[in-house]
Amino acid sequence: MAALTPKFPHMLHGGDYNPDQWRDRQDILEEDVRLFKAAGINTVSLGIFAWSAIEPEKDRFEFEWLDEVIDRLWKNGIYVDLATPSGARPQWLAQEYPSVLRTGADGRRAFFGHRHNHCYTSPDYRERVRIIDTKLAQRYGSHPAVIMWHISNEFGGECHCELCQEEFRSWLKKKYGTLDRLNHAWWTGFWSHTYTDWSQLRSPSWLGETSIHALDLDWQRFVTDRTIDFMKWEISAVKSVCPDIPVTANLMGLYCCELDYYKLGRELDIVSWDSYPAWHSGDDFITARNESLSHDMMRTIKDQPFLLMECTPSTTNWQPLSRHKRPGMHELSVMNAIAHGSDSAMYFQLRQSRGSAEKFHSAVISHTGTADTRIFREVSRTGRDIAALSDAVYGSTVPAQTAIIFDPENKWILDKIQGPRNAGLDYFGQLQDWYDYFFRSGINVDIPDPESELSGYRLIIAPMLYMFRSGIQDKLREFVRSGGILIATALTGTADSTDLCFTGEATEEKLSDVFGCWTEETDALDDGEYKDIFPDGRVKLLWERVRLTSGETAAEFHDPFFGDSPAVVKNRFGKGTAYRVCGAPDTAAIHKLIENALTENGCSMERAVNAPLPDGVSASYRVKDGRKLVFLQNFTPSLTEARLDGDYRDLLTGAVLSCTELPGYGFSVLEKL
Amino acid sequence: MAALTPKFPHMLHGGDYNPDQWRDRQDILEEDVRLFKAAGINTVSLGIFAWSAIEPEKDRFEFEWLDEVIDRLWKNGIYVDLATPSGARPQWLAQEYPSVLRTGADGRRAFFGHRHNHCYTSPDYRERVRIIDTKLAQRYGSHPAVIMWHISNEFGGECHCELCQEEFRSWLKKKYGTLDRLNHAWWTGFWSHTYTDWSQLRSPSWLGETSIHALDLDWQRFVTDRTIDFMKWEISAVKSVCPDIPVTANLMGLYCCELDYYKLGRELDIVSWDSYPAWHSGDDFITARNESLSHDMMRTIKDQPFLLMECTPSTTNWQPLSRHKRPGMHELSVMNAIAHGSDSAMYFQLRQSRGSAEKFHSAVISHTGTADTRIFREVSRTGRDIAALSDAVYGSTVPAQTAIIFDPENKWILDKIQGPRNAGLDYFGQLQDWYDYFFRSGINVDIPDPESELSGYRLIIAPMLYMFRSGIQDKLREFVRSGGILIATALTGTADSTDLCFTGEATEEKLSDVFGCWTEETDALDDGEYKDIFPDGRVKLLWERVRLTSGETAAEFHDPFFGDSPAVVKNRFGKGTAYRVCGAPDTAAIHKLIENALTENGCSMERAVNAPLPDGVSASYRVKDGRKLVFLQNFTPSLTEARLDGDYRDLLTGAVLSCTELPGYGFSVLEKL
Amino acid sequence: MAALTPKFPHMLHGGDYNPDQWRDRQDILEEDVRLFKAAGINTVSLGIFAWSAIEPEKDRFEFEWLDEVIDRLWKNGIYVDLATPSGARPQWLAQEYPSVLRTGADGRRAFFGHRHNHCYTSPDYRERVRIIDTKLAQRYGSHPAVIMWHISNEFGGECHCELCQEEFRSWLKKKYGTLDRLNHAWWTGFWSHTYTDWSQLRSPSWLGETSIHALDLDWQRFVTDRTIDFMKWEISAVKSVCPDIPVTANLMGLYCCELDYYKLGRELDIVSWDSYPAWHSGDDFITARNESLSHDMMRTIKDQPFLLMECTPSTTNWQPLSRHKRPGMHELSVMNAIAHGSDSAMYFQLRQSRGSAEKFHSAVISHTGTADTRIFREVSRTGRDIAALSDAVYGSTVPAQTAIIFDPENKWILDKIQGPRNAGLDYFGQLQDWYDYFFRSGINVDIPDPESELSGYRLIIAPMLYMFRSGIQDKLREFVRSGGILIATALTGTADSTDLCFTGEATEEKLSDVFGCWTEETDALDDGEYKDIFPDGRVKLLWERVRLTSGETAAEFHDPFFGDSPAVVKNRFGKGTAYRVCGAPDTAAIHKLIENALTENGCSMERAVNAPLPDGVSASYRVKDGRKLVFLQNFTPSLTEARLDGDYRDLLTGAVLSCTELPGYGFSVLEKL
Repeated sequence: MAALTPKFPHMLHGGDYNPDQWRDRQDILEEDVRLFKAAGINTVSLGIFAWSAIEPEKDRFEFEWLDEVIDRLWKNGIYVDLATPSGARPQWLAQEYPSVLRTGADGRRAFFGHRHNHCYTSPDYRERVRIIDTKLAQRYGSHPAVIMWHISNEFGGECHCELCQEEFRSWLKKKYGTLDRLNHAWWTGFWSHTYTDWSQLRSPSWLGETSIHALDLDWQRFVTDRTIDFMKWEISAVKSVCPDIPVTANLMGLYCCELDYYKLGRELDIVSWDSYPAWHSGDDFITARNESLSHDMMRTIKDQPFLLMECTPSTTNWQPLSRHKRPGMHELSVMNAIAHGSDSAMYFQLRQSRGSAEKFHSAVISHTGTADTRIFREVSRTGRDIAALSDAVYGSTVPAQTAIIFDPENKWILDKIQGPRNAGLDYFGQLQDWYDYFFRSGINVDIPDPESELSGYRLIIAPMLYMFRSGIQDKLREFVRSGGILIATALTGTADSTDLCFTGEATEEKLSDVFGCWTEETDALDDGEYKDIFPDGRVKLLWERVRLTSGETAAEFHDPFFGDSPAVVKNRFGKGTAYRVCGAPDTAAIHKLIENALTENGCSMERAVNAPLPDGVSASYRVKDGRKLVFLQNFTPSLTEARLDGDYRDLLTGAVLSCTELPGYGFSVLEKL
Repeated sequence: MAALTPKFPHMLHGGDYNPDQWRDRQDILEEDVRLFKAAGINTVSLGIFAWSAIEPEKDRFEFEWLDEVIDRLWKNGIYVDLATPSGARPQWLAQEYPSVLRTGADGRRAFFGHRHNHCYTSPDYRERVRIIDTKLAQRYGSHPAVIMWHISNEFGGECHCELCQEEFRSWLKKKYGTLDRLNHAWWTGFWSHTYTDWSQLRSPSWLGETSIHALDLDWQRFVTDRTIDFMKWEISAVKSVCPDIPVTANLMGLYCCELDYYKLGRELDIVSWDSYPAWHSGDDFITARNESLSHDMMRTIKDQPFLLMECTPSTTNWQPLSRHKRPGMHELSVMNAIAHGSDSAMYFQLRQSRGSAEKFHSAVISHTGTADTRIFREVSRTGRDIAALSDAVYGSTVPAQTAIIFDPENKWILDKIQGPRNAGLDYFGQLQDWYDYFFRSGINVDIPDPESELSGYRLIIAPMLYMFRSGIQDKLREFVRSGGILIATALTGTADSTDLCFTGEATEEKLSDVFGCWTEETDALDDGEYKDIFPDGRVKLLWERVRLTSGETAAEFHDPFFGDSPAVVKNRFGKGTAYRVCGAPDTAAIHKLIENALTENGCSMERAVNAPLPDGVSASYRVKDGRKLVFLQNFTPSLTEARLDGDYRDLLTGAVLSCTELPGYGFSVLEKL
Repeated sequence: MAALTPKFPHMLHGGDYNPDQWRDRQDILEEDVRLFKAAGINTVSLGIFAWSAIEPEKDRFEFEWLDEVIDRLWKNGIYVDLATPSGARPQWLAQEYPSVLRTGADGRRAFFGHRHNHCYTSPDYRERVRIIDTKLAQRYGSHPAVIMWHISNEFGGECHCELCQEEFRSWLKKKYGTLDRLNHAWWTGFWSHTYTDWSQLRSPSWLGETSIHALDLDWQRFVTDRTIDFMKWEISAVKSVCPDIPVTANLMGLYCCELDYYKLGRELDIVSWDSYPAWHSGDDFITARNESLSHDMMRTIKDQPFLLMECTPSTTNWQPLSRHKRPGMHELSVMNAIAHGSDSAMYFQLRQSRGSAEKFHSAVISHTGTADTRIFREVSRTGRDIAALSDAVYGSTVPAQTAIIFDPENKWILDKIQGPRNAGLDYFGQLQDWYDYFFRSGINVDIPDPESELSGYRLIIAPMLYMFRSGIQDKLREFVRSGGILIATALTGTADSTDLCFTGEATEEKLSDVFGCWTEETDALDDGEYKDIFPDGRVKLLWERVRLTSGETAAEFHDPFFGDSPAVVKNRFGKGTAYRVCGAPDTAAIHKLIENALTENGCSMERAVNAPLPDGVSASYRVKDGRKLVFLQNFTPSLTEARLDGDYRDLLTGAVLSCTELPGYGFSVLEKL
């Protein structure tokens, strides 16, 4: 695998740096670099939100201050991840070109404000972005310090202006060709909403149409495509000048579901993301588990290492409680990202801003401006350790035999459909419940979407995959036929890619042949209501009454309503086995389901360490040049000892160990000997 | 009493049918009819939301598919409740005539979307509705299958466009004549809001006026009148072609209080309504009680049987939890409607739609498309039983000696007034608390409004009748004087029809002569706070300190604040007795209040069965040709036995019984021998 | 000290009177005056909301009815607090001059409605207000009954119209001079929000800018200044005609923080306010405590007695529960206001309105229209007692040696800043926690803002004074240097007056020299989470890790995170002592902190009575001509006895006492002998 950052093929340590806020303080700009070096920082993300500093008025560019900053960094051995400044536009731009501001679903254009607030369609915005991106590329593209482009910042949101409406209509025309096809796909005859002219189409709005779920779904797809179109516009601006510098854009993990990150990520050279778990506001092990799922998703998008582009040195300023990371937690959380495939540890922010919205977000250099703070010391230690691990870890892979399918479009449509359970279907919660088993077992997992290559896995989990799209039926059928184990849960295979329900009883469209059953009724369970499926395992949210075709009952409900109806259906299909779970299993049921499935199919999964992990400790592994690198992390505040399954070398101390002591919020990085 | 549906004088069984969604599937349209017959369906509601199928573009009408559907139904012995399609308008109509779309309280016109979204004033909308209604009447009015008109669908909502504002001003001018009278009635001198020109008047709006409660009240009255005006416009369109076919419009029970259904219902030949209780999401007996109150209200509007126009075969798609009806519950709930005066059991929907908002609302024919489902079997059994009961039950009356007054306008004003208890006055909850006694006792109850004839009752309850309008004082005074028993509760008789508080101490306006007391202070009670009025009965929400004139204290508060102040005042007046309860009594207090009142006045009420009912079982009765038909319903999941007060014939089995066994969610229909 | 009301130098008893609502009822207007005299009413507030009665159409004035009312009052010995009617404008005014209506933050102008809904900038509004105010002043300014001007009513709210935007820009230009200075002060470089033209500036809006906290802050300052500008416009209209009649405007205590009442109050001759605590909806002692804090704040603004301009005779109509004041509570609550510096007891309202929004707000004369009500009797008794106390109490002062600083601007910015604890910083709760100690101890307290003179106190508390403005550093430094005791809590001294964080470690800007420490980290605590600082005292909300310079540790945290870090830092500075509390202490910790501080500094505070107060009883004292008048109030429903520290004369009974019996909801007013 090629290095992510060929000009500087090492683990990156650094973060967002905003010298534009301190242009009148030469002393501070110089002190910054001295402190960066003290903290082991080797890369900074520069220029994010610097548009008004670079182009203070239209066509007047001020690059000198930036020249100086980049040169100073370079002279001090620090590399630059250079941003296009399109994440926020200057006042003058919005004033001269009102079309750059977004329009809401109700048709009102916003005033200037915030940052994610520009229309990706606006020709004016595109033109001004192209000009400044090109200038940046021309001036800095060949600077030895610049190793990567940081395209805009945290893409998100949507615009409903008339230009975007036109683009949406074109997108729909291209997709459906005729209104008849669109009307059928969206089932618009319902409530007499049949479109008879393309001009009648517009985006969903609380002031208008909210009842056609397929319109909502296509609108969200369009928003992703529109965002990609704009992102590619920026990529082409910089690539046309310097084609060899890799581009990234900072994504936001599993939880930002406005955009389909799989589609965005595939257009980038490097996937990077901003990770802000709420440490110390709940069970840190569970927080780590959920965060690791996002890391794994980010890695799976391009099946290569990713960059941790932002995380906080200690507190955020936007969570309900601004909790400082307890001693050790900073490096532990960063090491967890690396354990799951990150080749960097970068922060927002390097120097704390003095005013405005994020002044209380923690930074490597706080308002005191010195190195004499706990946070600075924790960051510096992290920098030293990352440097020590760089040769062994940089570019290593995270091999996985298991996949949990996550489909952002399935999330979108589950949030819209009315009926199965309007009180909530908790798609993310279900993903996390399934992930829990592997996280506790030290088994690596991929998080592919339906577009991903699935043939290489041994076990695939499809939690509540309500919508079947992108030929997923054929992929899953072939996967099982060839010997794979598939586990799917309630609602899986209910509707097609435009949310039309499949009709008939047992059909191949629904994968009834693979599951050996079909669903007659789906009933909702209340919050806190469960149905037993095992002596110690239950389902929640929904339970289905299924009818068997070729499948056999592997577990049963016992309830006056459904009678003794199957709760788990097992079906041998080809060389493999499919399991249909008739509900959303809890973690205890999941444990049993997976153990049974592995046993019944004579399958075992490679683990980071073939030994039970202490409570609160997780493990994963990376591989490079045949070397297995094991990461052990202790998410509890107490010292614990982890047994190993043989001899390992501690990559930071060099010691050879057969068990390792993990301090509270401590970790070990070990090489299997 | 004449039959509701003279062309087909039988109990109706069927529901909403949307062949317009399946025009490209002749196979399905044919299969539908086969399945309808298998399910015992004899009537379908047709054409609701079919506008875009009938008139796909302006003035181009496509009736052929509908001809074929109606003919096929008729050939198979199935009747048609034909809808005017005005419940949702086509895209082209909104595009060509923007005035058809509603305008919000803030003056913004909506985009196209949803269904209840048309201005009832718009001349364009009225004209297009008149054209299509006339065409439908001309084409199908004399078709032998068509037995009834279904005018639009679930009228609701309001429009604030300038045309509606003008209509509102005309309505006010007609009502008040002069601004002086309006200003006095609305007490606009308060806060200097005196109107000095009619053009200053506009509807209440969060962007403007919300402080004149009488304006809110008159606006809601206007909205009802506007809706009726539009409904009558449609009625006259169809009646002018086929005057003999009865018209109905589907209402929505007690809970939809945007409109005064008493006024709407009186303009219809048949009252029908859509009933969607949330079974299995609480105590089913209580759910049944509250639903029965709505059935009784619907029946009382025209003092004749009503039609259950919609209910779900199993789940809805819009409640927080989509619970399937447990086995038996479907027929039980339908039979409960019949017990309270319905001459039909009709469903939304006959065939489940494949896409859009309601695809997960259950249907007689589900997405599988077959008869081999639990739901289809339950519906079919219901169909058989209804057919068996039709001769005995169709057209029978539900005689009642007791009335609980429900005034929708009183609900509106209680929701607006500031002061007595802004945390809520729970008018509906109070109606239900009073209804509870009768529901548990098997005593039939009417639910009249103040416009209704009240002289025939023995007992009238007026829970929190804050507003006295429509000469209700004279009616109630005369009722008591002639020997009736009246029970009223806190706040009753506080204000007149424009929400002006009555002044003075004891006055006839307030009915002080009838109650023998007047109220000096009304104090709010917190949620969960009660004041004892009996050893085992309490009041909640409010308690009043009253001053006696001719009345006597029938129960007392004992509290440091009010001292030993009357909690119930009893006043002999003429030949009758009036009781004032100084609070909102709980069900235990209500039990005692009614028992005492009946005993003290030597009055007893006819019951369905003169024997105590088992827990969870309700009873009511209908009468036809001197035969008393008793309905017993078991709303628990367990088998129970109900003792009877003599010999009865089971109308479904023919057996003669002196006690009856009711399975869980089971029922009996018995004729008194 | 001069009398507040020189024309009638006595305690005022009366309230809002709206004869304009009853102009067609001469009988009622005459009965009113008879009842006023019976209730001991000597002053009425007249003309609030009477604009449409005085000027029913533009330039047509009807004064005759008002002449008659004022003459009748005067003939009966009742004085008039005459209002300008600008609290609500007539319909015709809004119709002819749309600019008088407010525009929301999103740029939409409101429809006519409500009352606080006029643009203070609108030249039309100003002109019409000037005309009517001048006419009123000319007609009534020399009437012997008129003793005071009541300027408008409860100023509040804000307008975002283009005229106001222009005023805001001018205000900013005047404040900052150049955009460079504004951009630096607001730190707009963050997110590229740099202003490059004054025209780009506009008010904060959810439809635009919400991320620049200093903009929010300056906007709120501007809104206060705009309101003052309008208020002074009105004041000058009446003063130019009758310069000798004092003006007041009714404020709304601590809780209305839209406006800086310190700034408003300083422009008035008399501070008055409307007090509406929710009696009997919680612990009445705590309710009284919080209300007393507001009384003290109102008194501190001008360091002179204030007027209780509105309170309810029994219930309000706008609280969630409309609780009547229990017997005694009315006079008790009024006497509590007097105890803290009020020279009046005035009510909203004297006669209850029949209709519209406030018809259920209680009144001296209720809808019954008679004197024969509990409320009328309670008011009458209060009137008699106030008259009896007038000579002794009127004009007396409320001396205080302790101050708790309350900065409304600090409240505004604490509500905006993101980070320290977004779940809430509870600034008011902290003020109340500190106040609690003094309220329970019978120690008088002032509530100054940072602009107030602070040098005269012995002890100053600065709870969470995040923002240092108005040279507060110098004032506090000098205060401590000269021997004062200063106690400050977490976050104090974090940012300057435009919300720029102070930089560096120990600096004088932050008062590090005075506190002997500086803060390295501030961590949030969850709701219900505390950290011990004493065996029985804790902090909540936040805890800081501080670094000592000259200070010493007076209490410590013991926690794995912070280690044994200082929880209270004590620092001798000059002749005084400063204490930094590293969190928000609870009332138990506050008790200990104050007791320790007083002991350590050999300081004792004068108390109302040098004896412990019974539970639920509070005490304060006023002084006039060397006489100490002690007020004891029992906020419990039970009789209790308070020991005194010597002989006192009961001012209502004349008895000489060394202990006093307080009935439930009773009080004593005593003179120290």
